[in-house]
Amino acid sequence: MELAILLFDRVTALDAVGPYEVLQRVPGMTVRFAATEPGVKSTEDGSLGIVADTLLEDVPTPDIVLVPGRVGELAMRDDERVLAWLRGAHETSQYTTSVCTGSLVLAAAGILQGLSATTHWLAMDELGRLGAIPVAERVVQHGKILTAAGVSSGIDMALMLAAQIAGDDVARAIQLSIEYDPQPPFDAGSPSSAPEHLVTQQRRRSRFET
Amino acid sequence: MELAILLFDRVTALDAVGPYEVLQRVPGMTVRFAATEPGVKSTEDGSLGIVADTLLEDVPTPDIVLVPGRVGELAMRDDERVLAWLRGAHETSQYTTSVCTGSLVLAAAGILQGLSATTHWLAMDELGRLGAIPVAERVVQHGKILTAAGVSSGIDMALMLAAQIAGDDVARAIQLSIEYDPQPPFDAGSPSSAPEHLVTQQRRRSRFET
Repeated sequence: MELAILLFDRVTALDAVGPYEVLQRVPGMTVRFAATEPGVKSTEDGSLGIVADTLLEDVPTPDIVLVPGRVGELAMRDDERVLAWLRGAHETSQYTTSVCTGSLVLAAAGILQGLSATTHWLAMDELGRLGAIPVAERVVQHGKILTAAGVSSGIDMALMLAAQIAGDDVARAIQLSIEYDPQPPFDAGSPSSAPEHLVTQQRRRSRFET
Repeated sequence: MELAILLFDRVTALDAVGPYEVLQRVPGMTVRFAATEPGVKSTEDGSLGIVADTLLEDVPTPDIVLVPGRVGELAMRDDERVLAWLRGAHETSQYTTSVCTGSLVLAAAGILQGLSATTHWLAMDELGRLGAIPVAERVVQHGKILTAAGVSSGIDMALMLAAQIAGDDVARAIQLSIEYDPQPPFDAGSPSSAPEHLVTQQRRRSRFET
């Protein structure tokens, strides 16, 4: 099975690496990191480089497509090569997926038109403007399309996906091997649980708020 | 503040990227990915390359040291340059930390001698053989030394660390921005919760069991 993860400059590393870490452990999985121009892509703060070793057009029919997010997603939404690749790959994919604002790219490609989907909590309205029906859930599945909420949610989505592909036992074994027994020291991981002043602060600073 | 993350071939990407994603968001944090030979390091399955852009000796006194784990950690334990760097950095660090089997490298450097510490659940005995006192907890703190359990635990450790460095509100804001509101589809993330046959299977396959 082939998983193609789209990479681009100013990507959020964990959006891509969380699901990668889960899905590379599914027996028989081959992971390709693909970009319009292969090479080192820098993450959002510029301090980490991750390598896209595959030309987008060299993985035309991946079984799974995964689009991560963050600032770099803006350029992807306007890149006709990326959108055409996504539309083509989606025709034959078993799963088309996104993490965080990666769903905005899927939406820009027309793949989420009229469908329920999710994204980073700050980008919900933007997702709606692009034609999807935003739903505030950790993972939203609509047939073969799975969209996940912000950044760390890709780990949960990937475990769901691993179970659908290879069975619950394989997904549980992967969870055990990455010791995914989360114990966050605070309960502030969503706008419904975080202190209100932090939610307000992040809304005020967000590029999606007008 | 300077965070130095040790990289090497056959590292587990999420061990490094989980904490990076949290700690790069601490105001004033500079992150350096350091190696004995800068360049692209391949992850454990070889499908992802991540870039170490800094020579180890060029970050002699980082405020925070972080050592990730996985198969590649074996070579690090025998690498005198790495061990000498760790000992030196630990002398002046504010925090010396590890994720997963990264603690075996700290132990090999003598930093965990006689101290309680943790690691991936499969490496507990090995950690003991290297002179530490293995404790089955998600994160173990001993003064300025923090060791985390397997792979995904680095995210929890980094949030604890962010709180200690910059205060609870900053840590909560980071948790909100990466939407870390974990909802694993299964409860199988530790050997105490996972089905026994999976625990047995992974023990049998482990390089640490003899």
